[in-house]
Amino acid sequence: MTLRIGMLGYRFMGRAHANALARLPMFFPDAPDVERAVLIGRDEAALAAAVDTLGFDRGATDWRDALGEIDVLYNLGPNHLHPEPSIAALDRGVHVFCEKPLAHELDLAERMATAARDSDAVAAIGFNYRFVPAIALAKRLIAAGELGEIRQFRGRYLQDWLCDPAEPWSWRLDESLAGSGALGDLGAHTLDLARYLVGDVDAVSGHLRTFVEERPDPRGEGTRPVTVDDAFSAQLAFEGGAVGTVEASRVADGHANDHAIAVHGTEGSLRFSLERLNELAVKRRGGRGYERVLVTDESDPYVDHWWPPGHVLGWEHTFVHEDYEFLTAVASARRGESTRQSESVREAESAQRFRPDFRDGLVVQRTLDATERSHRDGEWIPLDAELPPSAN
Amino acid sequence: MTLRIGMLGYRFMGRAHANALARLPMFFPDAPDVERAVLIGRDEAALAAAVDTLGFDRGATDWRDALGEIDVLYNLGPNHLHPEPSIAALDRGVHVFCEKPLAHELDLAERMATAARDSDAVAAIGFNYRFVPAIALAKRLIAAGELGEIRQFRGRYLQDWLCDPAEPWSWRLDESLAGSGALGDLGAHTLDLARYLVGDVDAVSGHLRTFVEERPDPRGEGTRPVTVDDAFSAQLAFEGGAVGTVEASRVADGHANDHAIAVHGTEGSLRFSLERLNELAVKRRGGRGYERVLVTDESDPYVDHWWPPGHVLGWEHTFVHEDYEFLTAVASARRGESTRQSESVREAESAQRFRPDFRDGLVVQRTLDATERSHRDGEWIPLDAELPPSAN
Amino acid sequence: MTLRIGMLGYRFMGRAHANALARLPMFFPDAPDVERAVLIGRDEAALAAAVDTLGFDRGATDWRDALGEIDVLYNLGPNHLHPEPSIAALDRGVHVFCEKPLAHELDLAERMATAARDSDAVAAIGFNYRFVPAIALAKRLIAAGELGEIRQFRGRYLQDWLCDPAEPWSWRLDESLAGSGALGDLGAHTLDLARYLVGDVDAVSGHLRTFVEERPDPRGEGTRPVTVDDAFSAQLAFEGGAVGTVEASRVADGHANDHAIAVHGTEGSLRFSLERLNELAVKRRGGRGYERVLVTDESDPYVDHWWPPGHVLGWEHTFVHEDYEFLTAVASARRGESTRQSESVREAESAQRFRPDFRDGLVVQRTLDATERSHRDGEWIPLDAELPPSAN
Amino acid sequence: MTLRIGMLGYRFMGRAHANALARLPMFFPDAPDVERAVLIGRDEAALAAAVDTLGFDRGATDWRDALGEIDVLYNLGPNHLHPEPSIAALDRGVHVFCEKPLAHELDLAERMATAARDSDAVAAIGFNYRFVPAIALAKRLIAAGELGEIRQFRGRYLQDWLCDPAEPWSWRLDESLAGSGALGDLGAHTLDLARYLVGDVDAVSGHLRTFVEERPDPRGEGTRPVTVDDAFSAQLAFEGGAVGTVEASRVADGHANDHAIAVHGTEGSLRFSLERLNELAVKRRGGRGYERVLVTDESDPYVDHWWPPGHVLGWEHTFVHEDYEFLTAVASARRGESTRQSESVREAESAQRFRPDFRDGLVVQRTLDATERSHRDGEWIPLDAELPPSAN
Repeated sequence: MTLRIGMLGYRFMGRAHANALARLPMFFPDAPDVERAVLIGRDEAALAAAVDTLGFDRGATDWRDALGEIDVLYNLGPNHLHPEPSIAALDRGVHVFCEKPLAHELDLAERMATAARDSDAVAAIGFNYRFVPAIALAKRLIAAGELGEIRQFRGRYLQDWLCDPAEPWSWRLDESLAGSGALGDLGAHTLDLARYLVGDVDAVSGHLRTFVEERPDPRGEGTRPVTVDDAFSAQLAFEGGAVGTVEASRVADGHANDHAIAVHGTEGSLRFSLERLNELAVKRRGGRGYERVLVTDESDPYVDHWWPPGHVLGWEHTFVHEDYEFLTAVASARRGESTRQSESVREAESAQRFRPDFRDGLVVQRTLDATERSHRDGEWIPLDAELPPSAN
Repeated sequence: MTLRIGMLGYRFMGRAHANALARLPMFFPDAPDVERAVLIGRDEAALAAAVDTLGFDRGATDWRDALGEIDVLYNLGPNHLHPEPSIAALDRGVHVFCEKPLAHELDLAERMATAARDSDAVAAIGFNYRFVPAIALAKRLIAAGELGEIRQFRGRYLQDWLCDPAEPWSWRLDESLAGSGALGDLGAHTLDLARYLVGDVDAVSGHLRTFVEERPDPRGEGTRPVTVDDAFSAQLAFEGGAVGTVEASRVADGHANDHAIAVHGTEGSLRFSLERLNELAVKRRGGRGYERVLVTDESDPYVDHWWPPGHVLGWEHTFVHEDYEFLTAVASARRGESTRQSESVREAESAQRFRPDFRDGLVVQRTLDATERSHRDGEWIPLDAELPPSAN
Repeated sequence: MTLRIGMLGYRFMGRAHANALARLPMFFPDAPDVERAVLIGRDEAALAAAVDTLGFDRGATDWRDALGEIDVLYNLGPNHLHPEPSIAALDRGVHVFCEKPLAHELDLAERMATAARDSDAVAAIGFNYRFVPAIALAKRLIAAGELGEIRQFRGRYLQDWLCDPAEPWSWRLDESLAGSGALGDLGAHTLDLARYLVGDVDAVSGHLRTFVEERPDPRGEGTRPVTVDDAFSAQLAFEGGAVGTVEASRVADGHANDHAIAVHGTEGSLRFSLERLNELAVKRRGGRGYERVLVTDESDPYVDHWWPPGHVLGWEHTFVHEDYEFLTAVASARRGESTRQSESVREAESAQRFRPDFRDGLVVQRTLDATERSHRDGEWIPLDAELPPSAN
Repeated sequence: MTLRIGMLGYRFMGRAHANALARLPMFFPDAPDVERAVLIGRDEAALAAAVDTLGFDRGATDWRDALGEIDVLYNLGPNHLHPEPSIAALDRGVHVFCEKPLAHELDLAERMATAARDSDAVAAIGFNYRFVPAIALAKRLIAAGELGEIRQFRGRYLQDWLCDPAEPWSWRLDESLAGSGALGDLGAHTLDLARYLVGDVDAVSGHLRTFVEERPDPRGEGTRPVTVDDAFSAQLAFEGGAVGTVEASRVADGHANDHAIAVHGTEGSLRFSLERLNELAVKRRGGRGYERVLVTDESDPYVDHWWPPGHVLGWEHTFVHEDYEFLTAVASARRGESTRQSESVREAESAQRFRPDFRDGLVVQRTLDATERSHRDGEWIPLDAELPPSAN
């Protein structure tokens, strides 16, 4: 059984997933075979070049044309292109991997989650940081009770590419295309990790800020308004009694892509930073300080597939792990089995389905939406607990 | 002219200031001469021992008895003992140094600030972290515009001495004696630094949490309720347009006394942590990352008084610097001069008075109060801009 | 033109280079096309599995059979298998990439270098750490004079896989198969970087130590003697007047693969550690401390081929860069051009050939040999300056 | 019983010890009472000012005049002034604390050790880094076997005050006054720690280098030759089978006073750096990486005398601890007891005398001398094992 892959989008995320697919056979030989079948994009010249570079069989300029020929759709386009192709694919039983955030508007995200519930296909969302070995190890430690009961979470995701007011406008700065700014682009990752490691969030208090309110039009025609946030912060109250803070910025000078989290429990703490993604700092029960764990041992999540201890991995490896889990779940679903995570993170997950899925994406989307409403209203917003029930 | 010092309190802060006073002659020879005249406390035996160890002339069990014999009152008692002696001292022209937070209730803090305004005496509050050389250097860099316009502030003050639910009750856990918990004890420091480095705060959104709601009575008689927060967070909107987050905890396992701040401007950033108080990390204009500055050069604030480059200072040195500035201001006031900071931080301060003073303490107190009200009401609280005008 | 690759060895280094070859088309589209033609090994079953996993056309159990069908030989076998196949390949004009150290005995290394001199083929040695972006940036900074004149070098390469005396014997612990222990396996890398960044070494004083003198036979038959060093140190005198120290260990508890170097010049310093291979710490002229440079900008060596700033690379990427440079040089040689490094490191290299080559390997080999002789004789050993002249 | 102190030297070390003496009563109330009686120096004006600032009763321009009026001589002058006053003092039973290195010439150091052996007085040498709490904790951990058997030691002491060739000449750069350069000034500290933590050294291989061979005369009269090393390295073979490297430099740009050591044992490792002197990094048995221990707990050496956990100490505190131990030993000797270390480090010391003493100083001196001879002769130098037997 070879899975035929269609991929919408061939820039940043397209390269990340095309690379991941290409690397699976050598390092995860038990992954399903895949055929990079159709690459989808609108600019014909760029598409043709990408088909060649990324190793696809052919290109298509309309995703509708491709759906009939593929088993799996990777939806890696801009946020406003997430809903329609994803729903259409799920409706005809094509498995979907959609980049985060789920959508640029909450009601569309709700519709995507409903479509996922009503489909037998796997509907995955791209919170790839769950697949950093150090994060998977953190999950394992927390699930095993090594930190005791979790009390506090702290996350911040700092970038600096918008520091300069002369940096031009792009679709990421338009609310109607992107939904939000640092909040949805960066905060979505952090909120997913908060939920992954600590649990569901009850209520949120948010604060958004746009520092540079218009930017040069990239085609040189004056300026265009920035309608999303440059930075945001949020306070969280978790269902289980923990509290948290989350922050993201695109104007934090000196931070290229600095995603850092901290968790404090009654008997231990841990810390992680994406810029040092092979490391997890763990304050253990009975220890006196944080131990720096280089998460490159054979016993660490996913690491046995790669290199000997101390030979560090990079950012892109998270996509290999993610696609491995996703495609394994797809193959399992096609065989009529309940879809589930592989051994490597199973201890940490009770679910039998691939996670994170569209329900997880929807929960994050609701939190993003609540953060924005909280900012607008100046008060805490409770989170809607009711989710589309899982149909798998 | 020798300044006669009365000191109320002889435990933690008492030792810190007694030590600072004893060290001034050798390292700050231009500081005013002081006489450690009266040490004030209620437990006669402990007081007598402390008089001896801390080098005071005599002890007194009632602060009222001492006021007539001293020029300066160091009020280092529990928070609920801050208002009455401080006001009485200021009323009779005795200069006052009061530990933070100013009071355990906002209205008393307001009265203290009014008393300070109406007195010719210097009224100082003990935000000693302003006197860490690295923090004074941070202030200098920001004031010189080296970070551009400040956009974001992040502060957290983490301790772990209350992790264990068996840790006994103390006055610090009783709202009627302490006012608040991590908020007032730790957050007060961070909020002062936020204001020192970034500017006044417009509005605040706060979140408090008590994880352990009762603790063993230290006299072995069952348990007593904890009526203050174990941890808090707050989101800040600054007058100048910056945003910020502040956090503190007494239950952050693995952090003994970890006070850390970060500031991002349009052209640079900086970071500081109290556990490495000789270091300031600076992302400079045009630089590619944070430079680790060991703040031990002769040109760094206060450092020329101590040792050659690379010979690091400790936490206690902040009190020597603080008392040096305070006593210099007192001596100046007694000579009828306007009180002002010494050369070393003058560039960074437009004020001619000793800072931080009771007005600074009041502003922080109002922020603490607004944080609590925000938590209670679930909404943002604007800060009262009107202050008792300075009378100096 | 497609280069037919033969690869001797399919374990650690085999996987590293097979992966690198597989990744070139997507990320270095101007690299020559390659065909993974023949994989060479002795264990037929293991070989067959590796042919499949690593994507080769066929397997061969004798390297002699393969030489006629390939353009390039990757010699990745144990050290004692480096000389014969490499020399045979060069003699018939097959380009050779040989893992380090060049050989297990100095006279064989001399013969290899002579064979390389007398061949038109490219003869490369696998000092892959030259191709870490941070190291290539270090070279660029030094070559541009940003550190002034180099005075001091310090390198250490620490591993801990032999801490436990119960760790079994392997070929790496036998002098007749490996040549030396930590010295040749780890120190060779550090000595190459010393030379790459600082220049040629005049004389060396070495010190070797074997802490565990026999280890369990892996087949369960008693113990076998360890005839190589567990750890070594060396003092270096460079031709240009600089001094240095180098150290390596396989028994440094807590260090999985910790290769760290430091360079001090008259006007700056820098530091690097393999466990954080995306970072270079640079003390710049006029700076006050080390700046942490995250070497992930588009302008950094090789990084423009990969991901946006802040998306970190791993250990294996060094092989992609190395193979890109090597294969580019091979293609150039086949076109009859003088072989040379690509643009990306050209500034830092005056040579027109691929570097590091067998001459570089020989120089390191002579240094390893001198280190051992120095240990044996208890005195400094001058290094033979005369090299087989380059024939390219 | 009050000990009358005479102090020769009032600059750097003079201030460090005067401060330490002044602080003992408040923080180490069981320390012997001392009277800062006589300060000795040649420049009358400077001396008078120092007598005042450092709190001495009177000044003396000839140390011979002072010996009759004091119980203890702190010999803190330049190295060439160590022997004569120290020997004279010991001969008349005056206790001596001498700064390191013991002397500028080995034969004088031998004579000092002999004088110490033949005197009932305590003869201490100022290796103050033994009294850093983190170092004392390291000793405690090693003595308790927590690192297993020690195999490797690595030390480096980096300064940068001589980077600039325009930095003027001083007595520290003259062999006849200082003995050696980085070797004796910095390396002496590291060699003492090597011996303190690992044990005696059997043989040494040394390498010295002077990068700047003449420097401006400080009085503006042309230049003067530099006759000592700017930097040195050494390889060590310890009696117990361990190996080590030691390095120091005064031209390591970016390092103000960076004294760092590392120790690897069969079951654990540790690391320390003076720039972060409150921290000890410990790789424990069974741990996965280094744990950062903030050495500020009540149970840590000396810390119970100071502040609560997390309130960090500075460089100068090492002198308070050192003088506390020394003066306690002096008082004990005067009472006719065998002199011994206090409780706090007793576990780690079998000796009953104050350590480090002149014998320890002599051993280091012999190692310095052997390092220089090794450099001159280009070969390893065995260390003379025979010491003046202890007379205490």
